[in-house]
Amino acid sequence: MSKKENTQALRGMLDYPPKDMEVRTYLRHGIELTAEKFGFKEYDLPIIEALDTFSHKTSSEILQQQAYSFEDKGGRKVLLRPEITPSLARMAAGQAKAYKRPFRWYIIGACYRYERPQKGRLREFHQLNFDILGESSVLYDVEILQLIAELFTAYGIAPHAYQIRYNHRGFAQVALRMLAKMDGAKQSIFFQMVDKKNKLSVQAFEELCHKNFSDEATRDFIKSYLEKTSVSAVTELLETLRKLLSQQLLATKPENAAIENFIKQVENFSQLRKLLGLVDFPSKPIYDPSIVRGFDYYTGLVFEVFDASGEITRSLFGGGRYDLLLAGYLPKQGDLKNGLTGVGFGMGLHIVRLFLEKLGLPLRKKIDTDGKAYLAMMVDRTNTNAKTEASSEEVLALQSFAFKVAACLRNKGYAVEIGAAASSLQKLFTQAKSRGYTLVSILGERELATKAFSLKNIASGEVKNFSLLADAKRK
Amino acid sequence: MSKKENTQALRGMLDYPPKDMEVRTYLRHGIELTAEKFGFKEYDLPIIEALDTFSHKTSSEILQQQAYSFEDKGGRKVLLRPEITPSLARMAAGQAKAYKRPFRWYIIGACYRYERPQKGRLREFHQLNFDILGESSVLYDVEILQLIAELFTAYGIAPHAYQIRYNHRGFAQVALRMLAKMDGAKQSIFFQMVDKKNKLSVQAFEELCHKNFSDEATRDFIKSYLEKTSVSAVTELLETLRKLLSQQLLATKPENAAIENFIKQVENFSQLRKLLGLVDFPSKPIYDPSIVRGFDYYTGLVFEVFDASGEITRSLFGGGRYDLLLAGYLPKQGDLKNGLTGVGFGMGLHIVRLFLEKLGLPLRKKIDTDGKAYLAMMVDRTNTNAKTEASSEEVLALQSFAFKVAACLRNKGYAVEIGAAASSLQKLFTQAKSRGYTLVSILGERELATKAFSLKNIASGEVKNFSLLADAKRK
Repeated sequence: MSKKENTQALRGMLDYPPKDMEVRTYLRHGIELTAEKFGFKEYDLPIIEALDTFSHKTSSEILQQQAYSFEDKGGRKVLLRPEITPSLARMAAGQAKAYKRPFRWYIIGACYRYERPQKGRLREFHQLNFDILGESSVLYDVEILQLIAELFTAYGIAPHAYQIRYNHRGFAQVALRMLAKMDGAKQSIFFQMVDKKNKLSVQAFEELCHKNFSDEATRDFIKSYLEKTSVSAVTELLETLRKLLSQQLLATKPENAAIENFIKQVENFSQLRKLLGLVDFPSKPIYDPSIVRGFDYYTGLVFEVFDASGEITRSLFGGGRYDLLLAGYLPKQGDLKNGLTGVGFGMGLHIVRLFLEKLGLPLRKKIDTDGKAYLAMMVDRTNTNAKTEASSEEVLALQSFAFKVAACLRNKGYAVEIGAAASSLQKLFTQAKSRGYTLVSILGERELATKAFSLKNIASGEVKNFSLLADAKRK
Repeated sequence: MSKKENTQALRGMLDYPPKDMEVRTYLRHGIELTAEKFGFKEYDLPIIEALDTFSHKTSSEILQQQAYSFEDKGGRKVLLRPEITPSLARMAAGQAKAYKRPFRWYIIGACYRYERPQKGRLREFHQLNFDILGESSVLYDVEILQLIAELFTAYGIAPHAYQIRYNHRGFAQVALRMLAKMDGAKQSIFFQMVDKKNKLSVQAFEELCHKNFSDEATRDFIKSYLEKTSVSAVTELLETLRKLLSQQLLATKPENAAIENFIKQVENFSQLRKLLGLVDFPSKPIYDPSIVRGFDYYTGLVFEVFDASGEITRSLFGGGRYDLLLAGYLPKQGDLKNGLTGVGFGMGLHIVRLFLEKLGLPLRKKIDTDGKAYLAMMVDRTNTNAKTEASSEEVLALQSFAFKVAACLRNKGYAVEIGAAASSLQKLFTQAKSRGYTLVSILGERELATKAFSLKNIASGEVKNFSLLADAKRK
């Protein structure tokens, strides 16, 4: 140990000393309260997972460029989870028979991505996930959005401060297929491109569009499709697709199954849209065809939550429906009826902290100093640091008395810190104050002799008296 | 996805579906309650650390054979922490000026060791650490042991069910040096050997002793030293050392500093022993010279907590004082006055769970079904799975009504799960029961028409009536 050691956490990772941990605890309490209100139960998962659990699930960009992956001492290819959903899918499939559906489950845990650290983006980040598994009705899509609204209300976020923008991956796929003849590969390119739209200038997006789609008609379609956001425009789009699909259903017998699935996607989106229209929201979700989400596993609803002021430009967080993610785990593959369909979202706690800070909202529970007592020892002599045993007898007597007082107060429901010993009252009160206490008990020779002590409120001056003897008698 | 995917967590790691997470939550609540009572604040740390933070701190056995260590994408040598104390030391040194001493801090988090998994030993394990930093008085050693007693009381563990056995590393070193002339290297061998004593038969331990110490006199000393556990034997040992040390202090001037430190260790142990004698404990800590702890950083008190029945043979957990661990971080090295001395313990949640199970104690909070309501929808027609939009209008109306009812009940403080839609009352009640609800509200056409609904207690038959109209009027 010749040079001074580094006290910093690794780049992109945060220490949480108590003042910062208080914020996470405050956020956690809001989450727990909301989970309770909505009948969700907490679960947890290992942070290390087999690489296989994430292959073909998490986006390949994350897996190849950002994952903390390595070989364990047994030669297994493992990673620190970059997100939670694929781990949840693994566990939920294993527990499919042990719990009644739907699973209404939530988790708060750490995830890991090796990215360039920046404001609101860390390499170790804590996030929550809320998911409903085993029900495919749009009812549960809406319930997830209601839960977000409730959580934001719990944090005191005003309705006008945030926006929920949503889209429907299945509906979008049908529209792209039917109206622009895009096959799966082209759709993937489209989704990847649109996912970047918010981060690009109008011109940069147009250039990207030019690069990806050489055909002018397709580019025109994309432009007009992304602009169709009004109620009437979406209704018209829905009607157009319905007509086209029912014509095709009649015309092309061999494609029936595919067309029927297309119709299902369109009607699912239509129902979702109607239900969102009927249900009360503090901040009504807004349809936005440019919301597509980065992960490949979404099948229906996709949504992102934004800072309405636009100051935080990228979305705060998002989620959606992923009805096929668990298919690979199940005996009859692709059998949706037996499958565990899912809808949910993940939310990073750090970005929410930044958002609350920006809005000037509370980040910590109000400190309650009632019932918190500081116990200090008054030693009127100079030999408190005595090295020989004989002279420390009195200190020992005082210390063991302090433990009796602490036990007495803790039994009465007080939180007690046994604090310093000093030879000046002033010093003891200063110490108590600096540690955030307003209730202080000073123990000295008199208290030791009488087995009685008092608790003084140093703000109000109020004094409460206690006696260990009286307490002992009562027992 | 041609073959069925594996739903298991990695070997030695546990999933925590809700029924298991409830146990961790129960344990966590006991910890939080106890922390509050003793004036401790929660903190958190990254799970990934620089390898350097653990070198020369954690035992080299753990570091070389059990650590999950790897290179990150930036070429840094990192590891997943195998224990928490070295990380705490790093952060506490960095925060030395930001917080008033002593730090009374606790953490609950995951640690990682690649060991052969066995009952009570996992590769990912959750543990808590309680530490008091910045005070070297034995008062805080005793406070840590008091906290453990309080935590065990919170879990309902009877005093006779556990034993706290303690020793003092500094005192042991002085005894080994003064009475058996063991130098530092020999002491290390002694400690490593004694740390394994509990796992070995008497004969195997004797053989190991023979291997490590060729000198018969030393072996005789070791045998008799480890047997000195009675109050009178320890008092005699203390007196012997005191005499020897005061003679040496007079005789050997150049060694004064070392001898003075030896005296300090002996007196520190003596004070600790006296204070432990004076303070009330549900289960009084027992002096045991064979408790030494595996980590090299302990300097004073060391202790382990045992299942008193002996059925769980290895210690449940342990801790101690580590006054030099932070020295390398501080400007003036080895300057204890400016240094952050520490005392604390780590406790694995899994082993405590096993211990509570063995004792037949509660592992979960009693389920409170009051105030938890299940909302079900009664649909009297057969077209609930209707694929066309027109026929689903009524379902949509019922669903959006359910959201209004849920919001109304949640506002009144109920936890509400919006549940299934079905065409049989019996089915709905069965579903509610199977999900653990006793309060059920069934929403059908009548409720939709009248905007009124009732909450039925299916255990007692009691019914409460509500009206959305009445609620709206009141606003």
